[in-house]
Amino acid sequence: MTSGVLHIVGLGPGGAAHRTPAATAAVTGAEVVVGYTTYVDAVADLLDPRQRVVRGVMGEEDRRADEALVLAAEGARVALVSSGDAGVHGMAARTLARAAELDADERPQVIVLPGVSAAQAAAAAAGAPLTDDFAVLSLSDISMPWARVERRLDALAGSGLALALYNPRSSRRAAGFDRALELLRAARGEATPVVLAHDVTRPDERIERTTLGALDPERVTMRTVVLVSGDSAAEVGPWLVALRGPVGAAT
Amino acid sequence: MTSGVLHIVGLGPGGAAHRTPAATAAVTGAEVVVGYTTYVDAVADLLDPRQRVVRGVMGEEDRRADEALVLAAEGARVALVSSGDAGVHGMAARTLARAAELDADERPQVIVLPGVSAAQAAAAAAGAPLTDDFAVLSLSDISMPWARVERRLDALAGSGLALALYNPRSSRRAAGFDRALELLRAARGEATPVVLAHDVTRPDERIERTTLGALDPERVTMRTVVLVSGDSAAEVGPWLVALRGPVGAAT
Repeated sequence: MTSGVLHIVGLGPGGAAHRTPAATAAVTGAEVVVGYTTYVDAVADLLDPRQRVVRGVMGEEDRRADEALVLAAEGARVALVSSGDAGVHGMAARTLARAAELDADERPQVIVLPGVSAAQAAAAAAGAPLTDDFAVLSLSDISMPWARVERRLDALAGSGLALALYNPRSSRRAAGFDRALELLRAARGEATPVVLAHDVTRPDERIERTTLGALDPERVTMRTVVLVSGDSAAEVGPWLVALRGPVGAAT
Repeated sequence: MTSGVLHIVGLGPGGAAHRTPAATAAVTGAEVVVGYTTYVDAVADLLDPRQRVVRGVMGEEDRRADEALVLAAEGARVALVSSGDAGVHGMAARTLARAAELDADERPQVIVLPGVSAAQAAAAAAGAPLTDDFAVLSLSDISMPWARVERRLDALAGSGLALALYNPRSSRRAAGFDRALELLRAARGEATPVVLAHDVTRPDERIERTTLGALDPERVTMRTVVLVSGDSAAEVGPWLVALRGPVGAAT
C-alpha cells in the first residue's frame, strides 16, 4: 500500500447543513479534490487556493475514478466528491472496482464516507414516507438493460414497500418512466400518494404532492426524486407518513 | 400554529463525525432535548446545563413523541433525537402522526432532519454493496404481523436488490431471522455474500464478511445490520461492491 489516501465522499443532498463533519474534513484535508464540476462547486466554501482541483464532466465517471486513484497511488491525499451518499448510486462502487485492479502494494488506502441521500432529504421534506421499509431503484438504462430494471420494478411494485426512484426520466429517456408508472398504477392503484422532490435541499427546492393517477410525467426530470408510497402510508395533516403499525394506545 | 418548534433529529449512526450540522444545530438550539437515554448520551458533547433533558425508555416511543409535542405546543424549542435517520425506522412517522391529531392552531412547527442511516454506514465500511439499488427491511414483528414481514421479504428475495435488514434478531425473537435466512438461501443461493455490521461507527464497531450459507444466526443481534448482496454484487479486492454495469472501456 502506498502512503496516499483516497476518500470517496458523499456530500449529502445539497446544502452544507446536511454535509457530515467527516465529509468536510476529508475535503479540507485533501491535497487534491476531484469531482464532477457541480459537486466541486458544492464544496466551494471549503476549498483553499493551495489545493489542486480536478473538475470532471458528466459521463466520464471512470476517468474521474482513475485520476483520483492514480493521484492517491502516487502518495497524495485525494477527496473524490459526489452528491448524496457515495454508496447510493454514487461513485463508490466503480472506484473501488478499479482500485481492486491495482496490485495491493500499489493501491492507496481507500475510505468511503457515507452521506445523507437525496431520497432521505426528500422524505424528510414530505414527512416520513420511507420510515416503514423502502427501496431505492434507479430507472436509468445506461448501465443496465431496461428489461432488468423492469424486472426489479415489477418485484418491488407488489412488495408493499415505499419506493424512491432515482434518475427517473430525462428528455432523451421518457419511455421507461411511462412504463414504470403503468406498472405501479396497476399494482398499487391510482390513489397511491406520490412525492416529487425537485432540487431537494438546494435553493430551488420544490416538493410536490400528487398521486400515481394524477402524476404528469412532464413534471419529472433528472433533478427529481420520485417517492411512491407503500402499503402502510397515510396522509396525516400536512404530512405523508408510513406507519408500520397502529400508533397510540393500541400499539 | 404555536410559536414552539419540534425538530425530529436523525443523529447519524453513532460517531459525531457522521452527525450533520443541521442535527447539531437543532440540538444546541433546543431548550428541551428529548430522547431514548442512549441517544441523549450520543449528544452529551452538545448539551448545556441550561437545557432541560428528558430521557425516555425503550418501548415508550409514543409517550416520548407526545411529551416532545406537548412541550413544543406550549412554545418550547424541542429536539427529539434518535439514531441514524429519523425517517428510516426512526421516530419521525409516529411523531408526525400524533402531531396531526392536534388542531392545526395548537400544532407546533415540526421539522424532520434526515441523517446517515446505519445501513449506509455499514455499506461504506464494507465497500459499496448498496450502490446499485437496495431495500431496507425491518424483521421486527412488534408492530406488524410476521406474515406481512415475510410477504415483503419474499417479494424482495426475488427482486435482485441488495437488502439491508434492520432489527434482524433478538434473543426473544430468533425464529423470524431463521425463516428469513431460509427464504434468502433458497432464492439467492448459499454463496451470496453477506455483511454483518455490529455497532457500526461506534467504538466497538465490528464488520464481518460471510455468506448466506455460512452465516451463523447466533452472531446476529439487535445491534447488527445485516447486508445481503443483490444480483449485481462482486467481491473485488478487500471490498464488496454492487456494480450496476460493466466498469471500464465497455461502459
